[in-house]
Amino acid sequence: MTKVPKFKLGYTGGNLDRADHLRRDAQAIQVARMHPSARWLVLDDLKPVLTEDGNDLYWARRSELESEGQTIFLGLEADGSPRFAIDCPIGDLPGRATDARAAGMRLPDDRAAIIAQARSVLDWHRRHGFCAACGAPTRPEKAGYSRLCTSCAAEHFPRVDPVVIMLAVKDDLALVGRGPNFPAGFFSALAGFVEPGESLEEAVARELHEEAGIRVHNVRYLASQPWPFPASLMMAAYADADGFELTLDETEIAAARWISRDECAAVLRGDGEWQAPPPIAIAHALLANWASGTS
Amino acid sequence: MTKVPKFKLGYTGGNLDRADHLRRDAQAIQVARMHPSARWLVLDDLKPVLTEDGNDLYWARRSELESEGQTIFLGLEADGSPRFAIDCPIGDLPGRATDARAAGMRLPDDRAAIIAQARSVLDWHRRHGFCAACGAPTRPEKAGYSRLCTSCAAEHFPRVDPVVIMLAVKDDLALVGRGPNFPAGFFSALAGFVEPGESLEEAVARELHEEAGIRVHNVRYLASQPWPFPASLMMAAYADADGFELTLDETEIAAARWISRDECAAVLRGDGEWQAPPPIAIAHALLANWASGTS
Repeated sequence: MTKVPKFKLGYTGGNLDRADHLRRDAQAIQVARMHPSARWLVLDDLKPVLTEDGNDLYWARRSELESEGQTIFLGLEADGSPRFAIDCPIGDLPGRATDARAAGMRLPDDRAAIIAQARSVLDWHRRHGFCAACGAPTRPEKAGYSRLCTSCAAEHFPRVDPVVIMLAVKDDLALVGRGPNFPAGFFSALAGFVEPGESLEEAVARELHEEAGIRVHNVRYLASQPWPFPASLMMAAYADADGFELTLDETEIAAARWISRDECAAVLRGDGEWQAPPPIAIAHALLANWASGTS
Repeated sequence: MTKVPKFKLGYTGGNLDRADHLRRDAQAIQVARMHPSARWLVLDDLKPVLTEDGNDLYWARRSELESEGQTIFLGLEADGSPRFAIDCPIGDLPGRATDARAAGMRLPDDRAAIIAQARSVLDWHRRHGFCAACGAPTRPEKAGYSRLCTSCAAEHFPRVDPVVIMLAVKDDLALVGRGPNFPAGFFSALAGFVEPGESLEEAVARELHEEAGIRVHNVRYLASQPWPFPASLMMAAYADADGFELTLDETEIAAARWISRDECAAVLRGDGEWQAPPPIAIAHALLANWASGTS
């Protein structure tokens, strides 16, 4: 069985108790909003507001919030203090609206995890003001964890999109590739969305065949991470390739190559001919774990 | 690393090549529809049409289809024959519209996998005729794998909802529970949706704490399966519980109990005091794998 990997995974490790039972209790949420220890993370156009030095989230008091905006309940700190996120302009807050990827890389993991939760759910609200079933307006419910249709009463929940990201391996070589829009010199593990009616193991095999023309067997799950752009669940795996010959789907993959463990280790040290994903991305853990001899 | 489990997983094992590259090519899809070897699986009110004896899918010829209906491209058989699914009444087809769960349990896995794909995607079309972003009508694109807004041009993709299903284990005991609406005498592994901004391992820990009041560590992924009611990706795991004391969330869990491996094995043989999920459900594999001594 897989043990929880020892390596760090970006956007994981959040410490808030999401306190799901409070979401269903509108009165309890109202009490939480009024509590003196309540704080809000502002996302200005989906950019989290950090402290001026950029080293922490800026937790605003209710009295500091100048604008209305979609609000979600994030959870409770260990001491019971309620935490919310709100989608509104930064106004005069003494902080800095920061790109969520940059903030995720700079902050400690427990803070990045809060950004992931807040950004994914607030972005979902932005794009789900109407009922997909009937076209009527929807309104937020359950402290921001659902939207209810004002006409047909359909209830809609925040979306999480499962994605597989994987290394095909064979004879001490692993397959990396680059999409047509990747930065120059950048390679990563191949990836793709899990489709309806398949397991994640089947999605790994299908994507590697579609994108690189290879068949694989023995798919082995490694670990997962949320990726809030907008709301993916990245699930990392290894798979044994049946052969080395590649047939690339050029709409998805501009180039691909088989790399050695030494080459991979050099690249991860910043000492190679190409660039790999940074540690915040689970592809980094896939590569590092394999370079160190396991898969 | 986890190996692909040897046990069978319901709704997995499909043999069709989904041929993603054809979906983007409207002309190729039209050629496929006109090909003499093309066949359609009819879903009548989301119930797949089986042969009269109930032992296989009924693959209709184009000339047999009496009604219009949302059509999706399923993929290609090994010999290149195109396969589609259509949401329309059974009409005079010489088959039987069958509950999808019953069909999934009766048919071989490769056939059940086709039902999972067809039912999930056709159900998604039924519930997504309008744009969640602006409320305008949407129309199907990409052979049924997306819907495009006729007003704001937003593109929407079929939804897959990741779900964790897990056994908390401690000292040769495992935790099973029953929801308020479960059939009498039926217990299973606890389960819940993965939320935005958490890994699947974090979702396992959160759900076990929310529903049963226990803390866990060392979450170990086992395997996954699609569950087309309507479009879940079930991901099964074990987790080590820190203690035995339970505090149930009674809106979610009506009863829970710690069971021994012997008790679990007896129940799976149909020889116990309660009932466990059938083999088509991954919870069965979770329980069987644990009863046989591993987790």
